[in-house]
Amino acid sequence: MDGDRQQMKQQILFSSDLDDPAAWAAAVAALRPEIEVVDWRNVTDPASVPFALLWKPPAAGLAAFTGLKGIQSLGAGINQLNLAELPAGVPLARLIDDSLTETMTDYAVAAVYRHYRGFDHFERQTRARLWDYRPARRKGDFPIGVMGLGVLGGAIARQLRDLGFPVSGWSRGPHRIDGVRCHAGTGELPDFLAASRLVVNVLALTPATAGILNAGTFALMPAESFVVNIGRGGHLIEDDLIAAIDAGRIAGATLDVFSTEPLPVEHPIYSRPEILATPHVAGAIAPETAARTVIENFDRALRGDPLLNAVDTARGY
Amino acid sequence: MDGDRQQMKQQILFSSDLDDPAAWAAAVAALRPEIEVVDWRNVTDPASVPFALLWKPPAAGLAAFTGLKGIQSLGAGINQLNLAELPAGVPLARLIDDSLTETMTDYAVAAVYRHYRGFDHFERQTRARLWDYRPARRKGDFPIGVMGLGVLGGAIARQLRDLGFPVSGWSRGPHRIDGVRCHAGTGELPDFLAASRLVVNVLALTPATAGILNAGTFALMPAESFVVNIGRGGHLIEDDLIAAIDAGRIAGATLDVFSTEPLPVEHPIYSRPEILATPHVAGAIAPETAARTVIENFDRALRGDPLLNAVDTARGY
Ligand SMILES: NC(=O)c1ccc[n+]([C@@H]2O[C@H](COP(=O)([O-])OP(=O)(O)OC[C@H]3O[C@@H](n4cnc5c(N)ncnc54)[C@H](OP(=O)(O)O)[C@@H]3O)[C@@H](O)[C@H]2O)c1
Ligand SMILES: NC(=O)c1ccc[n+]([C@@H]2O[C@H](COP(=O)([O-])OP(=O)(O)OC[C@H]3O[C@@H](n4cnc5c(N)ncnc54)[C@H](OP(=O)(O)O)[C@@H]3O)[C@@H](O)[C@H]2O)c1
Repeated sequence: MDGDRQQMKQQILFSSDLDDPAAWAAAVAALRPEIEVVDWRNVTDPASVPFALLWKPPAAGLAAFTGLKGIQSLGAGINQLNLAELPAGVPLARLIDDSLTETMTDYAVAAVYRHYRGFDHFERQTRARLWDYRPARRKGDFPIGVMGLGVLGGAIARQLRDLGFPVSGWSRGPHRIDGVRCHAGTGELPDFLAASRLVVNVLALTPATAGILNAGTFALMPAESFVVNIGRGGHLIEDDLIAAIDAGRIAGATLDVFSTEPLPVEHPIYSRPEILATPHVAGAIAPETAARTVIENFDRALRGDPLLNAVDTARGY
Repeated sequence: MDGDRQQMKQQILFSSDLDDPAAWAAAVAALRPEIEVVDWRNVTDPASVPFALLWKPPAAGLAAFTGLKGIQSLGAGINQLNLAELPAGVPLARLIDDSLTETMTDYAVAAVYRHYRGFDHFERQTRARLWDYRPARRKGDFPIGVMGLGVLGGAIARQLRDLGFPVSGWSRGPHRIDGVRCHAGTGELPDFLAASRLVVNVLALTPATAGILNAGTFALMPAESFVVNIGRGGHLIEDDLIAAIDAGRIAGATLDVFSTEPLPVEHPIYSRPEILATPHVAGAIAPETAARTVIENFDRALRGDPLLNAVDTARGY
């Protein structure tokens, strides 16, 4: 009887060093008891597994998983995945959930207000036992630029607009967001940058956007602007940022993603008091809510329907 | 002719070490050229001055200003004023302006998000060259208590509610604010505190509220709660806060107001890495917008009508 029940279970391959397999297994089982989320180390019959949920492929690779009909990234992005390592022709989806949008938006709000209200400055001042009055800024004088107007960038731009900041956005193709000045394409990047006292980067990482935060873009921003990077480490040329801070061009930065993660202990970023480095914590996907999307994509994959938030591998995001 | 024109000028006495007399003079003159804002050092005929705009009375006192019909505080509070030093029977108003409500609300949002998203923790971690992942909090698990539901506390509670936090409030008399759990009076203080992961204090300072943030109130809050004080320094027993942090009861604090301002360089608050001390910058009144209220009260005082935002000196706020 137990054997029969086992037979009826359908398996999802799980592979991640960052996410908790037990939490995902419980969240999926709560909605669909017959679906079993199995860590790659415990899979006994790889060829029978139809669906994978992964941050990165298992150390042993995916070659043995010959029956895969769909792959669900455990992140909103897919840059952690080397597409060449994935089985050709198997649809790939990124994971979008309200929990991610909320946590990413919260992080952006926290990073914006920290600099807007001078808490970065006052933090240093407190440690130096200094009392030095500096009048409060007003939002009307603090225009913000959001790089990337996708699921996350769009939500961040709307939230900052609702809070009363003047907000511009920049993306590849045209967007329309009420009360947000939307720019598109490389040609409009200089105008976008010139109008931003603080930029929040939440672009997809592609060959076209890699290294987009560099000495050239910093030179186009108003003097003493501030940089917030919650996209990917590959968007930022870290040496250029440090040089721009040293030169007084850029006031500082709040960075959640880095060229190397964890950020090595000897990295010069740690030496700049103007930089706050957080350990890739901006977005968090809650299995309890996101399990619904994973199951929907599991069903779609088995039926052969297009996945939700499918990645256009040609476009790269 | 110049003499005639001078004659027609009406004067407002100005006295403050913190505010800029030229900015106020310009803002008032822009709306009503015949009203002259005069620093107390430059007043030649004190008895003829009908109205005063002051943070504190002039060093020489107000005895010579026998013709005063109204006094406008330069702050939202009047605790900086010793009521016994003011001429008896002259109506006193506090100053309320959208610029103050915006800046105070912004500060509260900045202080809440800094702790909510762990930026206080990550700031210390960055300085120590540490990478230590800590998952993002969700707003549903981060209930906030606002102490004081007046002009400023009400605006702060509504803003935090709009951002998605569970919000409670506490005041002297009953309030109703959509989506905010309102408590009133000393009897309901324990329930209010027990439900608050972070408190923002923006009470009026009166004998009943002096020292209200003390070992007793900290003991009623959940373990490792956070304290934000933007009311007055007199609301907080600073030694109790430091002891509560040392004991691990309170996680930390963001303080804008202190028992002594400027906070003396040797003060133990500077020694606690869990405390951010800002130099009384939370609220800023912009003369450009607030001049309208000052002029309205000037006119009311001359007509003998009740002032806007008149202080009930018996109640003390
Ligand atoms: N730090 C964290 O914890 C964390 C967590 C989750 C996600 N992320 C990052 O956030 C990124 C955005 O996520 P999302 O869900 O919002 O992705 P998305 O919906 O795919 O949006 C990507 C945005 O990038 C824009 N873009 C792509 N190539 C461009 C180019 N060459 N020039 C200008 N704009 C370009 C796109 O423009 P169009 O709109 O015109 O296509 C789109 O607006 C992810 O890729 C990931 O790197 C970080
Ligand atoms: N840090 C800064 O830069 C800065 C700038 C401006 C103002 N402030 C401070 O902010 C404070 C609040 O300003 P506001 O304009 O909001 O004042 P307000 O409108 O007079 O509100 C004061 C609040 O305190 C409450 N309160 C007074 N006595 C109480 C008691 N015994 N028990 C419980 N609640 C009590 C009042 O309750 P009821 O509503 O029931 O009357 C009211 O909700 C000012 O007094 C000032 O100290 C600080």
